[in-house]
Amino acid sequence: MTENQEAREELRHQDQDELEQHLKEVLHLLSRHRLVEDLVHRQDMPRHDLVENLVHKQHINELEHKLDTLHPADIAYILEALPLEDRLLVWGLVNAENEGEVLLELSDAVRESLIETMAPADLVAAAEQLDADELADLAPDLPSEVIDDVFRSLDSEEREKLRAAMSYKEGSVGALMDFDLVSVREDVTLEVVLRYLRLFDDLPNHTDQLFVVDRNEHLRGVLPLDVLLVNDPDTEVAALMQTDTLTLQPADEADDAAQAFERYDLVSAPVLDKTGKLVGRLTVNAVMDYLREKNEAEQLAQAGLMEEEDIFASVWDSVKNRWQWLAVNMVTAFIASRVIGAFEGSIEKLVALAALMPIVAGIGGNSGNQTITMIVRAIALGQVGEDSARRLYRKEAGVALINGLLWGGLLGVLAWWLYQDIRLGLVMTGAMTLNLLVAAFVGVAVPMTMQKLGRDPAIGSSVMITAVTDSGGFFIFLGLATFFLL
Amino acid sequence: MTENQEAREELRHQDQDELEQHLKEVLHLLSRHRLVEDLVHRQDMPRHDLVENLVHKQHINELEHKLDTLHPADIAYILEALPLEDRLLVWGLVNAENEGEVLLELSDAVRESLIETMAPADLVAAAEQLDADELADLAPDLPSEVIDDVFRSLDSEEREKLRAAMSYKEGSVGALMDFDLVSVREDVTLEVVLRYLRLFDDLPNHTDQLFVVDRNEHLRGVLPLDVLLVNDPDTEVAALMQTDTLTLQPADEADDAAQAFERYDLVSAPVLDKTGKLVGRLTVNAVMDYLREKNEAEQLAQAGLMEEEDIFASVWDSVKNRWQWLAVNMVTAFIASRVIGAFEGSIEKLVALAALMPIVAGIGGNSGNQTITMIVRAIALGQVGEDSARRLYRKEAGVALINGLLWGGLLGVLAWWLYQDIRLGLVMTGAMTLNLLVAAFVGVAVPMTMQKLGRDPAIGSSVMITAVTDSGGFFIFLGLATFFLL
Repeated sequence: MTENQEAREELRHQDQDELEQHLKEVLHLLSRHRLVEDLVHRQDMPRHDLVENLVHKQHINELEHKLDTLHPADIAYILEALPLEDRLLVWGLVNAENEGEVLLELSDAVRESLIETMAPADLVAAAEQLDADELADLAPDLPSEVIDDVFRSLDSEEREKLRAAMSYKEGSVGALMDFDLVSVREDVTLEVVLRYLRLFDDLPNHTDQLFVVDRNEHLRGVLPLDVLLVNDPDTEVAALMQTDTLTLQPADEADDAAQAFERYDLVSAPVLDKTGKLVGRLTVNAVMDYLREKNEAEQLAQAGLMEEEDIFASVWDSVKNRWQWLAVNMVTAFIASRVIGAFEGSIEKLVALAALMPIVAGIGGNSGNQTITMIVRAIALGQVGEDSARRLYRKEAGVALINGLLWGGLLGVLAWWLYQDIRLGLVMTGAMTLNLLVAAFVGVAVPMTMQKLGRDPAIGSSVMITAVTDSGGFFIFLGLATFFLL
Repeated sequence: MTENQEAREELRHQDQDELEQHLKEVLHLLSRHRLVEDLVHRQDMPRHDLVENLVHKQHINELEHKLDTLHPADIAYILEALPLEDRLLVWGLVNAENEGEVLLELSDAVRESLIETMAPADLVAAAEQLDADELADLAPDLPSEVIDDVFRSLDSEEREKLRAAMSYKEGSVGALMDFDLVSVREDVTLEVVLRYLRLFDDLPNHTDQLFVVDRNEHLRGVLPLDVLLVNDPDTEVAALMQTDTLTLQPADEADDAAQAFERYDLVSAPVLDKTGKLVGRLTVNAVMDYLREKNEAEQLAQAGLMEEEDIFASVWDSVKNRWQWLAVNMVTAFIASRVIGAFEGSIEKLVALAALMPIVAGIGGNSGNQTITMIVRAIALGQVGEDSARRLYRKEAGVALINGLLWGGLLGVLAWWLYQDIRLGLVMTGAMTLNLLVAAFVGVAVPMTMQKLGRDPAIGSSVMITAVTDSGGFFIFLGLATFFLL
């Protein structure tokens, strides 16, 4: 493990341009390899023709060598960019020692595409290179017999860690923490700590502080490395350790922990069980990964994609990933259509209604989405307390009223001018104003209700508001028109 | 500065529950304060009544004391959650020494609301507590005479740094980097480095590595603290320093740098000018802040909010923040309405068209947004190369075709059943399929074109696709119906 890690440190960190250069080289080698294969096929030459085989081999060797020089995260980047066939070819060339690390770095969809093709024995080998907390991240994607084999291969301490890591529910601090940490006692001097550290081959990544524990592993404080470095070596740890540090529990919400990391610019934080015993630590890279994944999941969910989609996935996989959302939209669109259907008599008498009604519905949806976005963000910033609700409704109603009169008034004039009917114009203005008020009310109520129910207000709010403003907009406009004009 | 920082370290880091508790206490103190004020007003008592004044004072003192115990980021959190009047009251009680830090932590909208009320002299005092890189972040919000005063108060080195920091354009590494770093020479032993570090009162935040430079300040390598700590003190720096580290330039894209931080789990990275001279460093907290702000800006932009909105802002400010988007939508909705207007004759003859047309447009928009979300994400992951375009068009067309036949077929049957007209059902199915194909094509083309033009594909794509699928959907459906049914 340690040797592996050291070897990896030696790999050069690439900036974006260099990375894209590597990708181009891989693509180039692949295309030359494919060219040779094509020739072999097309000319119907014996497949074991020596010369071709050598050329073929040479490209593959070059590729293999290239991959050995790359950081696992960079290999993952290249795999993401390759179509399935090339991806599997390149994956076959990745050094077995790196396979576990590379799998960790991949997006879920691409990871699954590779795991599907791997033999159980290879998966076990790849998994065994990982730490317990990393393994726990990978475990949901692995076949259960592989997990069982991995379990059996672990010593009892590691097995306990893995069991613990897998037991924490998604979105908790426990699921993100790792077990790599260095702890010291408070009754020793910094000199002793410095000597103790020299016994290590290297320190765990993101070690910005040492954890000070008593003999029962209960946390007494933390000793930041810079405190260790700037102070007199004869001082005792107890005199310098900080006791006011943020501590987390495995069951804490990862969201709250992430906010604390951002607020206080933390690099690591100790995780304690209920008795105060140090069980692990959370590091900033795990927090960053968590925030990125959460952000991505929200974006996907807003567009109704159930999970991330590998762009090289089959058409059929894509259809399966997207159908639920389309089904939901079909239902809401059908309801809106039936609202219109109820007013068909009015439309027959005044066909202008058909042309004007989508404007009322559309602007209502957009305005409602603005309100929702603003409220979701305010909730995330902690701006929305219990007292704010009434204030928010009042404010959004005010905005809706002004926008309704302003834009609705403009559209009313347009409608009057287009259809030479001032009453139609007035109905347009009235319907716009009412629908914007509906949008404002629902735009505040939906995210606030979802938050109260403990659900993520960013997800699903947008569908609901569009459903309401569509059906509502058609109903209000056609209803007003029927009542006043016909 | 250093003293300030130390004092701050002593402040306890709060978890989310504790933070909310503090907010409640502040609100409680404020409400008691208001109560007293109300009493004074309502009973028309002399305003300087001694007893009331004392009670009043007591709450204010309690509040002030409470604020002194809080981390600037936590004070910012509380200010965000307060309505304008209370916010200004609390802001007046914040220790002047912390004002600069608190301003930095606030969201733009809330920061502006406070800066507006501050006297230039107070602003200068607040600004002077900050480092050059922090000042540069605050500068765009400050009145120019304040900036001038601050400039005059700096020594020439700091002034040069501030000038440099302000010159880098937004979204570049230069705009995010700071100047706080510790550098050492390569020809000394670790022992010398350790002794050198003990001369510091503390190390800059996020010091996970020391920068090894020659006498011209050119970077030779980096010495991670853990390497410093685990190795024999008699070893020379040159033997241990890492030369394969990621280096950035001030003009590099912050996005690329952020991706490298995520890929390699970095805590800090050196920033060099073109000659290789070390000019600053980028730290993970700046990267996290950048990613959060970028993500927020994208979410706001997707809903057409020009900037973040303080939920306690005035109705009028909100109207101003949202009008552009509504105007754009008004235009696209009006165009769609005119497309329908062109077919009024057809709708008069077959009013069912009016009820069915929004379904075609709506599902097209949703499907197009799914495609766009998927492509934007793939672009961000680097999955979309030059060769992928054709493959993507083909795949999305396949998905659209299946969805069109499937859902369009279902809707066709529904239309047939509702209106007893099989030809209407067939037109429905055909129009859905065509509009989904249009959505697929535009859904791939728009983000890819925006990327080629160097613009953020996440912003604005959604408006464009909705505009196309609305007008396009109405045109296709009504056109087919006019051609085949009438």
